[in-house]
Amino acid sequence: MRAVQLHKHGSADELFIGEVAIPERKSGQVLVQVRATALNRADLLQRQGKYPPPEGESNILGLEMAGEVIESDSESRWQPGAKVMALLAGGGQAEYAAVPESLLMAIPDNLSFTEAAAIPEVFLTAYQTMFFEGKSKPGHSVLIHAGGSGVGTAAIQLAKAEGMQAYVTCSKPKHKTCLELGATLAIDYKVEAFDEIILEKTDYKGVNIILDFIGAPNIKPNVRSLGNGGRLVMIALMGGFNAIDINLIPIMHKHLTIVGTTLRSRSLEYKGRLVAAFAEKFLHQFSTGSIKPVIDSVFKLEDIALAHRHMEANKNTGKIVIEIKE
Amino acid sequence: MRAVQLHKHGSADELFIGEVAIPERKSGQVLVQVRATALNRADLLQRQGKYPPPEGESNILGLEMAGEVIESDSESRWQPGAKVMALLAGGGQAEYAAVPESLLMAIPDNLSFTEAAAIPEVFLTAYQTMFFEGKSKPGHSVLIHAGGSGVGTAAIQLAKAEGMQAYVTCSKPKHKTCLELGATLAIDYKVEAFDEIILEKTDYKGVNIILDFIGAPNIKPNVRSLGNGGRLVMIALMGGFNAIDINLIPIMHKHLTIVGTTLRSRSLEYKGRLVAAFAEKFLHQFSTGSIKPVIDSVFKLEDIALAHRHMEANKNTGKIVIEIKE
Repeated sequence: MRAVQLHKHGSADELFIGEVAIPERKSGQVLVQVRATALNRADLLQRQGKYPPPEGESNILGLEMAGEVIESDSESRWQPGAKVMALLAGGGQAEYAAVPESLLMAIPDNLSFTEAAAIPEVFLTAYQTMFFEGKSKPGHSVLIHAGGSGVGTAAIQLAKAEGMQAYVTCSKPKHKTCLELGATLAIDYKVEAFDEIILEKTDYKGVNIILDFIGAPNIKPNVRSLGNGGRLVMIALMGGFNAIDINLIPIMHKHLTIVGTTLRSRSLEYKGRLVAAFAEKFLHQFSTGSIKPVIDSVFKLEDIALAHRHMEANKNTGKIVIEIKE
Repeated sequence: MRAVQLHKHGSADELFIGEVAIPERKSGQVLVQVRATALNRADLLQRQGKYPPPEGESNILGLEMAGEVIESDSESRWQPGAKVMALLAGGGQAEYAAVPESLLMAIPDNLSFTEAAAIPEVFLTAYQTMFFEGKSKPGHSVLIHAGGSGVGTAAIQLAKAEGMQAYVTCSKPKHKTCLELGATLAIDYKVEAFDEIILEKTDYKGVNIILDFIGAPNIKPNVRSLGNGGRLVMIALMGGFNAIDINLIPIMHKHLTIVGTTLRSRSLEYKGRLVAAFAEKFLHQFSTGSIKPVIDSVFKLEDIALAHRHMEANKNTGKIVIEIKE
């Protein structure tokens, strides 16, 4: 089968489409013919050699996919012909993928493979960080950094569906999309101090939850923006990992919780619980269109290097999808 | 009534026993004749003007007491003559205290007022931080800093009762008490690197929970000592509050949670839930002697300044109790 391969770790120039063996399906797994996949920042890091796949997982890039079931255990609830989408620990950017049953979700009615491929990674990450780890509840307020990113646009919609206030930070050109998806307020972090605005807009109560992708440079204003009992969920450290000069007193006095989390390295049991909870709670809302995948652009598998460069330049609002044709 | 008073904020020399009005009992509260109270580090801070009582609370020192019910609502489950102990937001170091019903606990059989007064603050703090906030479960391992302190000696016993491994740090003279109470291992933090020892003793898996009183200087070795999914609960910042040079990567990769917490400033509803949960789970074990208050020394109310100086010199292992005679 064709799959995204690397000459060596490095720039997008190292990417090529190579011929490799179709993955062997083990018992409890489902073999899926991949029709579309999507790009994630983790793929860029893995390409650079900075984010190796977990032990035992495919070293082919690609953390999600949508496609058609080809083969499964006879008693599996996923039978050949079923249209499915899934979170993967790797191996999505290929013509076939072998996936544990518990990670598959049915593609919601009315969605194409291309649309479905834009769902798993960002919506499951948004769900995990905002609800599993962030303990959000209806009525809560959340500050979502990188609101125009894939996870950001997913988180805005889940927050809105759950009756929460969603404040976001993003660059000015992405404000419109965020507000249309249901954000209460979009803050241009390049020219505004988000903590000042959050405090002012919340009558100095602060928000309940923050989803952060930036890391070290954001910790101080994040702590300032959180209200009593608030939770800061750290999803990525794109701005740096070395926190200096952190005053612990407000963390104590406001009873704050700081959580570091990743999704890829979680156990299959954890991911299975996450997929089941998300599917039960939100999947039907994709069929009605009240929640939708946000697609920035669609590339052909052969143009994988262009897709990487597009994300690297931080040009996307929402997902970059890769279509795979036979 | 007689109560501990302050000439002004400052050293223990400012303490004196003065005459003040008996507190007025509101509906939902119980008036208790205090027979014994105990000293906490928060009292030292409050004396110095660094820890004002929450709004609306007594400005008399004293965060816990044991005594006899004098007056209550007619339908109250606490009727005159009942022997009770309680967590207070202030006002314990006096002959009478008015206490919300939900914060009272029956004194376990066979315990004196003096013994009972050593229970509420430290055992409820240990319970709160290890179970409510720390999410400890049987089979977990916990690292308890300041193992010889009041909260430390309580936490060791609760951990043991729950089938957990309790590693502690404390100065050498306090090791014997900690080990007798059930600690798995006592580490002399003055001469040993606790993170090295914790990693070695846990086969480099790390512990599940850390109860920390030290703050900034401990964060780096605490993060190192925690295993995957571990929780650091910050209870006090005795070693400093300004954290510098914190690497966020292991917090992400190990999926760590850092919680800042205090007890005194929690809502009455939270404290009521805490008292009820603790009483149901552990109170009967005081009657059988499998859990016991650890009393360092007993002072008369008139000697309150001596008690403060004893704690200030870090001389106590376990609680400093203050007896109040009519």
